[in-house]
Amino acid sequence: MIPILVLHGPNLNLLGKREPDIYGHLSLDEINQRLIELGNSIGLKVECKQSNYEGELIDVLQRAGQSAKGVVFNPAGYTHTSVALRDTIAALDIPVIEVHLSNTQAREEFRNRSLIAPVCVGTISGFGWYSYALALHALVNIFGQQAS
Amino acid sequence: MIPILVLHGPNLNLLGKREPDIYGHLSLDEINQRLIELGNSIGLKVECKQSNYEGELIDVLQRAGQSAKGVVFNPAGYTHTSVALRDTIAALDIPVIEVHLSNTQAREEFRNRSLIAPVCVGTISGFGWYSYALALHALVNIFGQQAS
Amino acid sequence: MIPILVLHGPNLNLLGKREPDIYGHLSLDEINQRLIELGNSIGLKVECKQSNYEGELIDVLQRAGQSAKGVVFNPAGYTHTSVALRDTIAALDIPVIEVHLSNTQAREEFRNRSLIAPVCVGTISGFGWYSYALALHALVNIFGQQAS
Amino acid sequence: MIPILVLHGPNLNLLGKREPDIYGHLSLDEINQRLIELGNSIGLKVECKQSNYEGELIDVLQRAGQSAKGVVFNPAGYTHTSVALRDTIAALDIPVIEVHLSNTQAREEFRNRSLIAPVCVGTISGFGWYSYALALHALVNIFGQQAS
Amino acid sequence: MIPILVLHGPNLNLLGKREPDIYGHLSLDEINQRLIELGNSIGLKVECKQSNYEGELIDVLQRAGQSAKGVVFNPAGYTHTSVALRDTIAALDIPVIEVHLSNTQAREEFRNRSLIAPVCVGTISGFGWYSYALALHALVNIFGQQAS
Amino acid sequence: MIPILVLHGPNLNLLGKREPDIYGHLSLDEINQRLIELGNSIGLKVECKQSNYEGELIDVLQRAGQSAKGVVFNPAGYTHTSVALRDTIAALDIPVIEVHLSNTQAREEFRNRSLIAPVCVGTISGFGWYSYALALHALVNIFGQQAS
Amino acid sequence: MIPILVLHGPNLNLLGKREPDIYGHLSLDEINQRLIELGNSIGLKVECKQSNYEGELIDVLQRAGQSAKGVVFNPAGYTHTSVALRDTIAALDIPVIEVHLSNTQAREEFRNRSLIAPVCVGTISGFGWYSYALALHALVNIFGQQAS
Amino acid sequence: MIPILVLHGPNLNLLGKREPDIYGHLSLDEINQRLIELGNSIGLKVECKQSNYEGELIDVLQRAGQSAKGVVFNPAGYTHTSVALRDTIAALDIPVIEVHLSNTQAREEFRNRSLIAPVCVGTISGFGWYSYALALHALVNIFGQQAS
Amino acid sequence: MIPILVLHGPNLNLLGKREPDIYGHLSLDEINQRLIELGNSIGLKVECKQSNYEGELIDVLQRAGQSAKGVVFNPAGYTHTSVALRDTIAALDIPVIEVHLSNTQAREEFRNRSLIAPVCVGTISGFGWYSYALALHALVNIFGQQAS
Amino acid sequence: MIPILVLHGPNLNLLGKREPDIYGHLSLDEINQRLIELGNSIGLKVECKQSNYEGELIDVLQRAGQSAKGVVFNPAGYTHTSVALRDTIAALDIPVIEVHLSNTQAREEFRNRSLIAPVCVGTISGFGWYSYALALHALVNIFGQQAS
Amino acid sequence: MIPILVLHGPNLNLLGKREPDIYGHLSLDEINQRLIELGNSIGLKVECKQSNYEGELIDVLQRAGQSAKGVVFNPAGYTHTSVALRDTIAALDIPVIEVHLSNTQAREEFRNRSLIAPVCVGTISGFGWYSYALALHALVNIFGQQAS
Amino acid sequence: MIPILVLHGPNLNLLGKREPDIYGHLSLDEINQRLIELGNSIGLKVECKQSNYEGELIDVLQRAGQSAKGVVFNPAGYTHTSVALRDTIAALDIPVIEVHLSNTQAREEFRNRSLIAPVCVGTISGFGWYSYALALHALVNIFGQQAS
Repeated sequence: MIPILVLHGPNLNLLGKREPDIYGHLSLDEINQRLIELGNSIGLKVECKQSNYEGELIDVLQRAGQSAKGVVFNPAGYTHTSVALRDTIAALDIPVIEVHLSNTQAREEFRNRSLIAPVCVGTISGFGWYSYALALHALVNIFGQQAS
Repeated sequence: MIPILVLHGPNLNLLGKREPDIYGHLSLDEINQRLIELGNSIGLKVECKQSNYEGELIDVLQRAGQSAKGVVFNPAGYTHTSVALRDTIAALDIPVIEVHLSNTQAREEFRNRSLIAPVCVGTISGFGWYSYALALHALVNIFGQQAS
Repeated sequence: MIPILVLHGPNLNLLGKREPDIYGHLSLDEINQRLIELGNSIGLKVECKQSNYEGELIDVLQRAGQSAKGVVFNPAGYTHTSVALRDTIAALDIPVIEVHLSNTQAREEFRNRSLIAPVCVGTISGFGWYSYALALHALVNIFGQQAS
Repeated sequence: MIPILVLHGPNLNLLGKREPDIYGHLSLDEINQRLIELGNSIGLKVECKQSNYEGELIDVLQRAGQSAKGVVFNPAGYTHTSVALRDTIAALDIPVIEVHLSNTQAREEFRNRSLIAPVCVGTISGFGWYSYALALHALVNIFGQQAS
Repeated sequence: MIPILVLHGPNLNLLGKREPDIYGHLSLDEINQRLIELGNSIGLKVECKQSNYEGELIDVLQRAGQSAKGVVFNPAGYTHTSVALRDTIAALDIPVIEVHLSNTQAREEFRNRSLIAPVCVGTISGFGWYSYALALHALVNIFGQQAS
Repeated sequence: MIPILVLHGPNLNLLGKREPDIYGHLSLDEINQRLIELGNSIGLKVECKQSNYEGELIDVLQRAGQSAKGVVFNPAGYTHTSVALRDTIAALDIPVIEVHLSNTQAREEFRNRSLIAPVCVGTISGFGWYSYALALHALVNIFGQQAS
Repeated sequence: MIPILVLHGPNLNLLGKREPDIYGHLSLDEINQRLIELGNSIGLKVECKQSNYEGELIDVLQRAGQSAKGVVFNPAGYTHTSVALRDTIAALDIPVIEVHLSNTQAREEFRNRSLIAPVCVGTISGFGWYSYALALHALVNIFGQQAS
Repeated sequence: MIPILVLHGPNLNLLGKREPDIYGHLSLDEINQRLIELGNSIGLKVECKQSNYEGELIDVLQRAGQSAKGVVFNPAGYTHTSVALRDTIAALDIPVIEVHLSNTQAREEFRNRSLIAPVCVGTISGFGWYSYALALHALVNIFGQQAS
Repeated sequence: MIPILVLHGPNLNLLGKREPDIYGHLSLDEINQRLIELGNSIGLKVECKQSNYEGELIDVLQRAGQSAKGVVFNPAGYTHTSVALRDTIAALDIPVIEVHLSNTQAREEFRNRSLIAPVCVGTISGFGWYSYALALHALVNIFGQQAS
Repeated sequence: MIPILVLHGPNLNLLGKREPDIYGHLSLDEINQRLIELGNSIGLKVECKQSNYEGELIDVLQRAGQSAKGVVFNPAGYTHTSVALRDTIAALDIPVIEVHLSNTQAREEFRNRSLIAPVCVGTISGFGWYSYALALHALVNIFGQQAS
Repeated sequence: MIPILVLHGPNLNLLGKREPDIYGHLSLDEINQRLIELGNSIGLKVECKQSNYEGELIDVLQRAGQSAKGVVFNPAGYTHTSVALRDTIAALDIPVIEVHLSNTQAREEFRNRSLIAPVCVGTISGFGWYSYALALHALVNIFGQQAS
Repeated sequence: MIPILVLHGPNLNLLGKREPDIYGHLSLDEINQRLIELGNSIGLKVECKQSNYEGELIDVLQRAGQSAKGVVFNPAGYTHTSVALRDTIAALDIPVIEVHLSNTQAREEFRNRSLIAPVCVGTISGFGWYSYALALHALVNIFGQQAS
């Protein structure tokens, strides 16, 4: 089993409780549970974390560089404003995939630019919790390429 | 008594100690004391908090969504840069009022845009500590409308 | 009693008649009546005027500089386009407070910049007719500071 | 089997022949073959088309609105310039997913804005041919939600 | 009878079938029929064409320069992006009128700029199919002026 | 006969006297006479007004909201600068059509943006005095739709 | 004696009373008196007018086109915002000179662009009341050239 | 003889027929004839093609990558808007030279930026049909360098 | 007699020889002669210099700070690009007046911003050689104010 | 010995471990050790801290205002985005010097603007760890000036 | 033999000595020699000059207006910043061709705009020293047209 | 002793004579003397030059590439406008350090962008004459690294 970090950014701890029309009815715990199970079924040992602190997200990402083989990261509100998180990811040797629940390109203009995307392998946005699931599949594909 | 959160953003713990010409001679404790007393006189139970951490401000606001009926928030330096705080407020069901001690529109251009204002009920700026006091009055007015 | 001018800019004479969902059900006369009464109760003699003419607003503001001790001004559509009104206010020695019924920062982008705000003491926006009421309270507070 | 259109935009017929470092060693035919097989295995009947003509892409998308239940679309160079394709997709009742082989956010600035993304369900970019594969999985997930 | 070309740009073949709330319930054939009849009644022999191809629209416009005396053109999605179509119209000796079904100035910001308008006689937008009808009247007026 | 206001903005009283190459040889009175006659022939009772004052234009538009069923408005130089006029029109319940004598999109860049257009039904520009005539026809068409 | 109009824009009636450090200690009446006397000595019959109304300034300028041979115009706050005044001046056949008391290029950025200057003969700014005096001299020079 | 493609973009088929003051009196056939003859004299076998279709230009360029050793390309109106053509050229292994009849930098601002130029060897503009002739000479020079 | 420097920037040595429609028929020598004579008549000893070198203009201005009491400066093409010249003038204790032959605000957009104006006393533009003459009068007025 | 704070922003704890080509082979501990030793040799008692938290950096800077006489600060990724840190430094009475390991002006455009620099004494960037060493020397120079 | 000036701007005296990968291995003297020889063979008497001084380039161009019949000018670093050189060329009656060794459109964004190009006949860039050679051919073609 | 060039740009010859509050009381000669002495003490043979001519600064820098091992350069007013100086430095093989007396980031916005910085090793600004001293220390450190 390949160790993977799923990292949720600010306000994602509110999932399922508020604005379900936009973000869906699943709580963050339920999503994490699904991702852990999906991971188990495709050879990934998924660990999930969430923080509202930019600094803590940096800390967690830095440590993941030591312990995990890949990261699925939803930077949420920090997507558009954090050069610091971008620098952290640029310093990692492992693949990081940016995910978003909603289609950020269809929202306010200030959400159109991602500071994070250019240092990630790729981006998946707009599929609700399933954005994370697709990212896990994408990591498996990347690991397969690395192995070949 | 209606429970209210007064939340002070970064550097406001320095109030009264530095740059009194700009920000006034009252310390944050003195302002808080005045707001608590004013709140008592108009039916509001005011709780005051301050943090320099964007993440902690998010945490506090999320919890206020459970325990308070309204928020008076001075986002200070995060006013212009925090999409994450904006997302938090957008997720709250209670009224949030943005306040500023100084007239931010009369200062540097980068202070002219507030990411926070569009998700608040309204904004009060330029009246020193009394901006907070006016915001408490505004909340009482809003609660009165909701009751009618 | 301290003489105060409450000045309403263009289209505010339509208040209560149109778009009540946005601007409320009170007519301008009803709002003026409330403000006069509130003024009476807190030591302010409130005079109210409205005009759709930029030039007339300038005239009235210039005269207020002679006869009033403070101004509460809703520049409405001229907020974003009138350098001339800005120059008038900059030439006054008495405090002017900018008010808006709606939260202008949450509306079209061209409403985000106020040419008027930088020359006012402060701004209050988003509380319907109560924005004016808060401004009267703010003036009382300012006069109290001047007296001390 | 649910009928699905996989639509490739301009220059994608060159895949595998040129710039393999950027776009991979698979030819478009090989990718299409993989997608058809993957589709078969997850209940999708995949039809693949490619055109260098903006007008033909519009024609094909319009017809897909009659015959297919979902579209995976790589608009390639038209991503950033075609209002006409955006209008076509906006007029479709079936879900369209935007995919890109490369991470467009990490390339020239003019590739940062997608005119297509705001009218799609979501976007997947950066995973080479596997971006298409993930999009097929995403469609299956969407159909599952619709069915429930 | 004066020969006139009515030229419809991309996606207009979908009229009446999709998004009738925005674009009306008339099909393109029905609109064409109305325009031909209106033309007959005011001395214009109206020919109608539609294409989703920018290149074909250029071809048709170039040929119209030989055979028609005026053009009514709805460039639709190419309005905002086609320098090539602009160059074609600039090379024509006959009057071209730009029409739009919807009020493009009231829609997304990228629809506010028309590359086509500066080389046309004038623009009519916002009146549904009747925008075309008004353009036919306008052509009659122009021909009358030329004749006098 | 349906009452209609035709409103001319600043400097249009000079029509026919100056710059006839650009604006034509008809005086404003002659144009008004033509529009009244055309209106009579198609069931519209046309009243014409002109003012150089933004404030007076607002006054007249507000009153038209009570007495007329539609407005044809040439805001001239205020087209690009008047938020106040935009707010007036947005508050009216009757259809307003923006007209321009010249093709404003073909002139200086600051004439390319209309603050007025987004709150009108539609815009007609570039046909000289006949722009007004087309607008009257457009109003008749709108009233016909409302009646059906 | 050649008839000349000196036209003062908004807030210039306050001259001498307020902000003398910026605008000088002379009242508008004193300046006018000086300009009339200077005019007399160099063959110009100077008439002076002031208005805070954009519309009245347009009216006065239009009439000056009939009665005066040249205009010295300080558009003050309307310098940067009035397309309507620009259009009026463009329609005049007589020379108009733009003057400013202060050096507008050394002030706020929004004062850097003049909409009026491009349709004037020239601009004189920064010399206090003497800017007007220089403009009178400039007109005499222009009339001399026209005569030769 | 080295095989060379000369490719003409949209509207260039009109050459000689319209706007000869700008584009010269030579028809496209005459220009092609001259280029073929010039090519013959300097060792180039010149084939000429023209299309108004962006997609067809892409097709032709892709095929030229197989059959020709160099391309002289006048993208005309697509110069400023086509990312797709840029991508095609970037994928070619043979030198492409961008040419323009007119001096595009001296025309409208939207013609100042070329999306095509950065992926070409160089650009030649402003010399009428002789721009193509110079490009043929440039190709001969490039082939000479490659050979040495 | 008060010593004054009249300084001409790049290309002004061509005056009278080229483009007389724009810049007039007087040569630079003739203008200088007129300015010297005018200076003699109003108490100014005028010295005239010209250079095409930004560095030499800086040298001359620096020396003028020692020997002259005022400067009339036409920076010509360096108006819009020279921070170095701006710094030189900012370091001078004597008044500098910016002059231009043509109305720079009516020309290309890049000529609209002057880097020099903000550090000058004022600006005079649009009156041909008479712009210099007016500047000499302005200096006399300034010296008169300094003396009083 | 004068107490000095050396403060390292986000991701600088990774120094020496990652991207040594860009940031050098020294670990943060090794750099701190060198700075402490250098400080000792020139009369400075250097204390070093690092945090990935914007809030903690604010806390540390606020406390340094009480205990240290100067600060050397590398804000790293927060350089370009933190108004809050700017406000903290503006409120300090002691000199703060901004340092960067790399030449930020030579990197991505979003790294070109520093929100921090305008409130610092000065900036040193591009010299690797030696940027800090130079800043210590600069502080000694500043203290020497203050003492004289 | 027709006299021609080939003028090289700043830093071109370094050619062949530095950065040969970008600018080629030929020294400026060798290039000049080739151009003189080429000129001789096609009827042009080529004189070559180089200067690092903007002012000297202006001087040389002004004199060329008297003595030469055409100019080939590589403005190098002044291409993007010199209004003064643009003004010089605009004042010349002889054709000037802008050349660049490298493809400036493929380099930094600030190299994309040429202030010089709009006043030249045309531009040739990207062909190394051969850009100059092509420009000489272009001049011969222009002279041929003038003669016919 | 390693030969070093210290190069001062425009207006720096005025140092100590003017605006001492901003630039300090030391003359350029005194600063040069201090730098020569400091250089002597740390193994550098410092030669100092100043020019107000962009062209001469280019000449001097080009020669320094032959004779010196490093350059300390204060480009002053040319910092923000000279592509030519940037190109010169890019062509040098020796390290160049940009220095500024004042903190340019805290001044006018047009001083925020340095065209020079991206091609230098690093930048030191804000420390008065000591900025140069720090740059000499930085060069010694660089030479030490090169030697190791």
